[in-house]
Formats: sequence, structure tokens, C-alpha cells
Amino acid sequence: MSSGTARAYTNIALIKYWGKKDQALVLPMNNSLSLTLDAFYTETTVTFSDDFPADQFYLDEKLQDQKATAKISNFLDVLRDKHQVKQFATIKSQNFVPTAAGLASSASGLAALAGATSAALNLNLSSQELSRLARRGSGSASRSIYGGFAEWLQGTDDQTSYAVPIASDHWENELTMLFMIVDDQEKAVSSRDGMQRTVETSAFYQGWLDSVPHDLAKAKKAIHEKDFTALGEVTEASSLKMHGTTLAANPPFTYWSSESLRIMQFVQQLRAEGFACYSTMDAGPNVKILLERKNEEQLIATLKEKFPEKQLVVAHAGPGIEILTKEDVNP
Amino acid sequence: MSSGTARAYTNIALIKYWGKKDQALVLPMNNSLSLTLDAFYTETTVTFSDDFPADQFYLDEKLQDQKATAKISNFLDVLRDKHQVKQFATIKSQNFVPTAAGLASSASGLAALAGATSAALNLNLSSQELSRLARRGSGSASRSIYGGFAEWLQGTDDQTSYAVPIASDHWENELTMLFMIVDDQEKAVSSRDGMQRTVETSAFYQGWLDSVPHDLAKAKKAIHEKDFTALGEVTEASSLKMHGTTLAANPPFTYWSSESLRIMQFVQQLRAEGFACYSTMDAGPNVKILLERKNEEQLIATLKEKFPEKQLVVAHAGPGIEILTKEDVNP
Repeated sequence: MSSGTARAYTNIALIKYWGKKDQALVLPMNNSLSLTLDAFYTETTVTFSDDFPADQFYLDEKLQDQKATAKISNFLDVLRDKHQVKQFATIKSQNFVPTAAGLASSASGLAALAGATSAALNLNLSSQELSRLARRGSGSASRSIYGGFAEWLQGTDDQTSYAVPIASDHWENELTMLFMIVDDQEKAVSSRDGMQRTVETSAFYQGWLDSVPHDLAKAKKAIHEKDFTALGEVTEASSLKMHGTTLAANPPFTYWSSESLRIMQFVQQLRAEGFACYSTMDAGPNVKILLERKNEEQLIATLKEKFPEKQLVVAHAGPGIEILTKEDVNP
Repeated sequence: MSSGTARAYTNIALIKYWGKKDQALVLPMNNSLSLTLDAFYTETTVTFSDDFPADQFYLDEKLQDQKATAKISNFLDVLRDKHQVKQFATIKSQNFVPTAAGLASSASGLAALAGATSAALNLNLSSQELSRLARRGSGSASRSIYGGFAEWLQGTDDQTSYAVPIASDHWENELTMLFMIVDDQEKAVSSRDGMQRTVETSAFYQGWLDSVPHDLAKAKKAIHEKDFTALGEVTEASSLKMHGTTLAANPPFTYWSSESLRIMQFVQQLRAEGFACYSTMDAGPNVKILLERKNEEQLIATLKEKFPEKQLVVAHAGPGIEILTKEDVNP
């Protein structure tokens, strides 16, 4: 019987990941760049034992069904195959999210799973190896290995596709990301399906790919120079562009709700009035707002006044993955 | 002293015109396809006289300022230069719009101006020549020469860029277009500036251009086969794609307001419930809904219930340009 526990934080891409070139290996079509955040994290314990007759997956203390468990088992098989492990496992995962707004993230979840599994098997992986492993579970999880800014290098095969930290002289600690929670009754297109449809059918996909290297270079330069305006501009531009690609898919679709657009346009309006803040969105209707931490109090007050009915979550730069002993988690 | 009067109707592009390859000659980057509508039209009388010391432009009985007049004078100069006319003109234009919602269209206005001016100068232009002439005033005006469906052929120079009617066996009379009027306090980017910024900076512009021939072919086939679903799908897809291009411009922008998106998503929802209707938008926040005329009453009732605060304008297929005598207009 061997056990390992890890805690990993979510990350939000400033330069978006949108599309895979290899579904099985989870190799992306373009590099992406993210900020790891402290507000959402997952703690996972993986225990292997000869006594287990099958994998069992508990999420937030609830035993999960076959479909959810199969996804975890497939991930574990990557390591079981490689290291000739024949044992089944029990996986216990807890999502720490500040609200019930469905903000659990596959990035923190799969990064924590990768960390816990490698700890249980005593693999002593480097961050880079851990990033590659987490990638197999969920592309964006590759970036949650690191605190602060990280870039996921697309690579050309399993060996060369992993994330690396971006040196920032701790500038990320001067930033804030606000999550504006937008409820949406619509059944969303999953991130996985949405990017796949876009790769296969969008008239804009090549234009998206061609533009990413320039955006990445601009973001990295902005981080190096601690230029908030430049980072904000390219963050918002990358998000709008990613969401633009879905409008040219066949059939077209969007992750925006009218409330998302209302918030994004309020952010633009604030900017026109001289308040430096920028929006970014992922495969869902929530809007994230990037700003300087020194302006946090003022912006929160403004947003609460403008959108009194909306849940608002404040996030700061978070740490990288933490490999914990079982005792650390349940003292 | 010589005078001419014309009435021209607006048109809405189903396959959008978005971008010029020649600013001065108004040559577009792609063919477009439209439906001329009965609900909005412009009546214009142009009078040339040796007695006039300068051009004077009255819109809705109000003398217009220098800037608005200069635009008209520039247009008249095209014909004055060609036909050695030395006289100045008085131009009296009346927009017939069902609401005060700012729906006056440059398509009907410039088409009527082209018709009235050529009548005043006794030019006896063919429809094709009139379309070429109207194009010089405003690209979309080239299509308002014809009733029903029209295609503007982009051409390669002044001679070869004009609209032609699309044979439809009067199918357009079985269609309805509803205008949902969306107020927007934001200062909009003009159509002219928006398309120019998109051509010059959007990462998606080439993808847009590459996709238009397929959309045009699909639209023409749908008209030929009276296939409403096919025409609706390609209409909505062309609009979403055009609006997607602006999200990848530098800086990015959008003509959508949150209310526009709310209406577009309601249209999608109605479709999911089995009601065949499709949205299209131009360089502003209003949403137009294409449907079959037989369903008009039902959809109007549904929309009035869902959006009781919105103005709604009903339009059907309109006629081509009408050259009138002065007596016809002011009996």
C-alpha cells in the first residue's frame, strides 16, 4: 500500500490555449501563457493497494460514477503502464472553491492528481516531468505545476510538450484577478468539444494560430518590463480573438452570454475613464478581470455597485503544486 | 434648370460586404448578397441650375452642414466631371423610416441620389450603370437598384463592380425581416472605419475572405431551391463571421451590445424549439430576424412578449429604384 497527496492551484490563461494537434497525447496547437491563482485549489490523495478490486474516485467525499472514474483510470494507466504497476487505486479529491458557482477547474484537479499519483509511486519527478504528466490529464493542468506566470510550450511530442515558469521578479504579487460569476442556463459546449469544432471547421483558426506568437512575445515582454497596460491589452485581445474563432465555426457558437458582454463592455468603459483593467474569458460565461492589486479595493466597490446581483471572487497569484504527506492534510 | 427625382429602398446584406480594396472607387473585397426591403426608403430630388451659387443639401427639409453637403458634392462631381456639367445643384432628400430609431440607411439614400441625379441630367442609365454609379456614393447602395435579391459583384475596376438581380421566382415575397431596435449609448465605430480597421489589422480577415465564395454559393443555391433553412443558416453564419472579424482587429471592437446578444440567443433558442428564424446584424446594435412570412404573426407575438420594451419593425421584400417626375412626388 502506497499513498501520496498533492495540492494544486488553478490557473487562468492570459494567452489562450485553443485546440489540440494530438488528442491522445494532449499536444496543443499553440503555446499558451497563464497566471496561477490562489483562490481555487484541489487536494488529492491517491492510494495504491493490492487489496483494491478496482479504481474508486471520490470527489468532495462523494463516490463518482463510472464515467468520471474512467477518466481518472485512464490517466493512472499512463503511469501504471510505464512503471509496471498492477494495483488499483483509491483517489480522494477535494475542490476548494470560494463559492458554489461551478468554478472547480480541471487544471487544478489534474495537476493535483498528477502530483499525488507520482508521490504515491515515489517517482520523484522534476517540475518539468510533472508538467508533462499533468498535461496528459488536462492540457491546462501542465501550467498549474508552477506558481505565478507559466508558459506551456506546445512541443512536437510527449517529451517536448510541457510548461515552464516565467521569471517575473514576483511582479505577479502586484496583480489581482476578479472573477465575475455569470449564471447561464444554457447547456455549454465543453471546452474540449468547442476547441475541437473550432480546429476542424473555423474559417478563423489559421488566423488565430498565426497571431499567437506575436501575442506571446508581447505578453512576455510586458512581464519582463512589468508593463501592466501592455499585459492587459494582450490578455484582452487574446481572449476576444479566441472567442472570435468560435463565431466562424460550423455551426457557429459562443461561450458569451449577454451578461458576459455587459461586464466586458463595462470593463472597456472603465478603461475609457482611465481605470486600467482588462477582461478575459474561457469556455464559459464567467468574466475574469485583470487589474493591479493597488486598485483592487476601488474596483471591487465599483463592480459591486454596478452589478449588485453578481457573485464576485477575488484572486491573487497562487503558488505552484505542493506535494504533501498524508499527515499534512489530515493532522 | 433641370430636375430629377428618385425613390430607393434600403437593403440588408445576407452575405455581408465587409472591406474595400479601393477606397476612392468603392471596390469591395468580396461579393455580397442582399434583400431589398419595403420598410425604409429615401426620396430625393436633384435640381441643377445656372442660378445656384453652390450645392445645397436638404435632408428631411433641414439644410445640412458643410461636411454632409461635401459628401453629396463629391458624388455629384463624378457625374459633373464626366458630362461636363458646370452647374451647382440643390438636393432635397426625405427619409421614410417607420420609427425615429436611427434606421435611415446610406444604401437607400445614395441609390436615390444616383437615380435623381442621372434623371436630372437625362442620362438614361441602365440598371447596371445606375448600380455602378450608386456604388460610388456608398457600396451597399449598388444593391438597392434592384428589388428582391441582388448580388454585388466586386469586380476589378469601376466598370466591372456593380450589382445584379438574382432570379428568385418571387420567393422573396414569402419572406419577412423583423428589425429589433436596440438603443445603444455607446459611440459606434462607423461602418466605414470599422471595415477599414478590420481589413488593415484583423488576424481573421483573410479567413473571412476565403470563406465568402462558399457562403455565396450556398445562399444562391438556397434561393434557387427556395430552401429557407439553408438561406437562414448561411445568413446567420455570414453575420456572425463578419462580427467575429472585429474581435481580432487591433484594437478589437464590436458592434454588439449585450441586448443584441440577448436577442440573437433568443433567436437560437426559438430555433432549438423548432421555429425557423435566423438573425443578422450590421455595423450597429440592431438585430434583424429573417423568417418565413407565414410565421410572421406568431413570431411578432412571441418577440413582443419576450422584449416588450423593444421597438419592432416589420419589413417585406421591397421594389427596385423608381425614377419619378417631380409631379409624382409633390402633386
